[in-house]
Amino acid sequence: MKQLAAYQQTFLDYLSKQNYQKNPLGLYEPIDYIMHLDGKRLRPILVMMAAEAFGKNTEEALPAALAIECFHNFSLVHDDIMDNASLRRGKATVHEKWDVNTGILSGDAMLILCYQYFEAYDNATYAQLTKLFSKTAIEVCEGQQWDVEFEVRNDVQMHEYLQMIEYKPAVLVAAALQMGGIIAGASKEDQAHIYQFGRLLGIAFQLQDDYLDAFGNPETFGKKVGGDIIENKKTYLYLKAIELSSEKDKNQLEHLFSLSAIDEESKIANVKEIFQSCGADIATQKAVEDFTNQAFQQLDSLQISLEKKELLKGFGTWLMNRSK
Amino acid sequence: MKQLAAYQQTFLDYLSKQNYQKNPLGLYEPIDYIMHLDGKRLRPILVMMAAEAFGKNTEEALPAALAIECFHNFSLVHDDIMDNASLRRGKATVHEKWDVNTGILSGDAMLILCYQYFEAYDNATYAQLTKLFSKTAIEVCEGQQWDVEFEVRNDVQMHEYLQMIEYKPAVLVAAALQMGGIIAGASKEDQAHIYQFGRLLGIAFQLQDDYLDAFGNPETFGKKVGGDIIENKKTYLYLKAIELSSEKDKNQLEHLFSLSAIDEESKIANVKEIFQSCGADIATQKAVEDFTNQAFQQLDSLQISLEKKELLKGFGTWLMNRSK
Repeated sequence: MKQLAAYQQTFLDYLSKQNYQKNPLGLYEPIDYIMHLDGKRLRPILVMMAAEAFGKNTEEALPAALAIECFHNFSLVHDDIMDNASLRRGKATVHEKWDVNTGILSGDAMLILCYQYFEAYDNATYAQLTKLFSKTAIEVCEGQQWDVEFEVRNDVQMHEYLQMIEYKPAVLVAAALQMGGIIAGASKEDQAHIYQFGRLLGIAFQLQDDYLDAFGNPETFGKKVGGDIIENKKTYLYLKAIELSSEKDKNQLEHLFSLSAIDEESKIANVKEIFQSCGADIATQKAVEDFTNQAFQQLDSLQISLEKKELLKGFGTWLMNRSK
Repeated sequence: MKQLAAYQQTFLDYLSKQNYQKNPLGLYEPIDYIMHLDGKRLRPILVMMAAEAFGKNTEEALPAALAIECFHNFSLVHDDIMDNASLRRGKATVHEKWDVNTGILSGDAMLILCYQYFEAYDNATYAQLTKLFSKTAIEVCEGQQWDVEFEVRNDVQMHEYLQMIEYKPAVLVAAALQMGGIIAGASKEDQAHIYQFGRLLGIAFQLQDDYLDAFGNPETFGKKVGGDIIENKKTYLYLKAIELSSEKDKNQLEHLFSLSAIDEESKIANVKEIFQSCGADIATQKAVEDFTNQAFQQLDSLQISLEKKELLKGFGTWLMNRSK
């Protein structure tokens, strides 16, 4: 999508005007660092795109776009501590470059900064934006907690998994889009539809990520293919296979997912074979398609021009195709 | 003060009606635990007291009082991780009872909950309260960062120390009082005076804490007397002694504060002797008195009845006498 680069540039120009070089430097330098690490800036672009779809100048969406990006980065800083991750976008994580205490405290400050960015709007808009933001932020925390708990649980149900991925990546995408609507003064109905569009697209995207982890092209996937299998992650693909496979295959799958693999390649091959023989691969692709179609249906109900709908649909199509 | 117990009870009744027993329990149980640990609830009481001073029912102050208490507890949870503290109010800290990841994530959720508690007010009041809250919360993070940095710096200046204690404990006291004013619709001038009353009283309280750490009565102080000296903390007392003492005493003090004491009691005795011989003890008491008087002067300017002023002054007097 050609427009994406333009949105991205507008956002980066705005970001570059923010002053994070202030005292105490020990608090603000890590914020400056993580905010400027390379990233696709998808969430802020969504705020801008939605504001434009509802007839507002993209510039007016910038403070909210910054808040959403700041929240995303806040969650990366704290999640990386929890996951003990040393690399983020190919660079050292904040707690690795500084220390855990810095990661905690700078993350806290970022969460507060998000709310301050919304102060650029009038009180009524500020109230709507921050209330949606708080609701979303709490859901992301709940999603993160489910994610942590699911790692040590062997009885995760499909509906629980779907709720977790709804809360963890999808609601932020949904909120970003609705914020654009709020800024542009969209009706409550339109706000609800654009929110659902984001939520469903976010779920579809995560399910596709689950699928591609096993069956993606190693050259374009961007992450190590088979990573979820090695980490025994109970993804949609796995839960679907448990549901669909024969008793024998199910037992073998559960056994394989209880081990730390010694021979990673053979574990990946065995698991993928079960995923395919029981049809979990096709069922997952089907779910991706279903959620994507449901997302696009939400666009039909919006009271905006066809051209604007095409802009949003174009983004959705690009997103769902980009990593195949 | 007789009224304090009544305010406290009103707050505790309100707190007991909050539902923290919700899913995911792993996220909310630690919040329930820390919010219900014994505490004096001073900050929420201040919100209620200020609202009443400006003519509003204390009940109307309860959501903001809860937000302030939740923020205080959020900062305890994250600070305890940073300080590696295992006990808080005589009970296991959250990260000790659960783990560090739980402490980080439940703390994050608490920070967001604070904002949600303010949603009980109309949009205009909500905007005023949350903006003051964000400003205060960022200052507390900055204060915490200064505190961490001062521990490893040997060139901390008095004005830096005063800014740190202004940011770390004092601004929250100040904001709690101003919030009461906001809720009661106090004028901007009155809001500014009550904020300054809290800020100055908060500083006086911290300076008194510095003094009592060395010269307090072990039976009533509540913490280990000499704790700051053992931890080589550069408090007001220490910085004043560096300023006032002879070259020889200054060198000895700096030497003593560069060691991890082997004989704690003799270190405490030596340091206290220097504090007294150079007059840092009297200078600190003088500073406590000055800040307290300045705080009380702010009350004179308030456009409220004498009786209400006496209520606030009574609280200040009680606070400054309670741990002597």
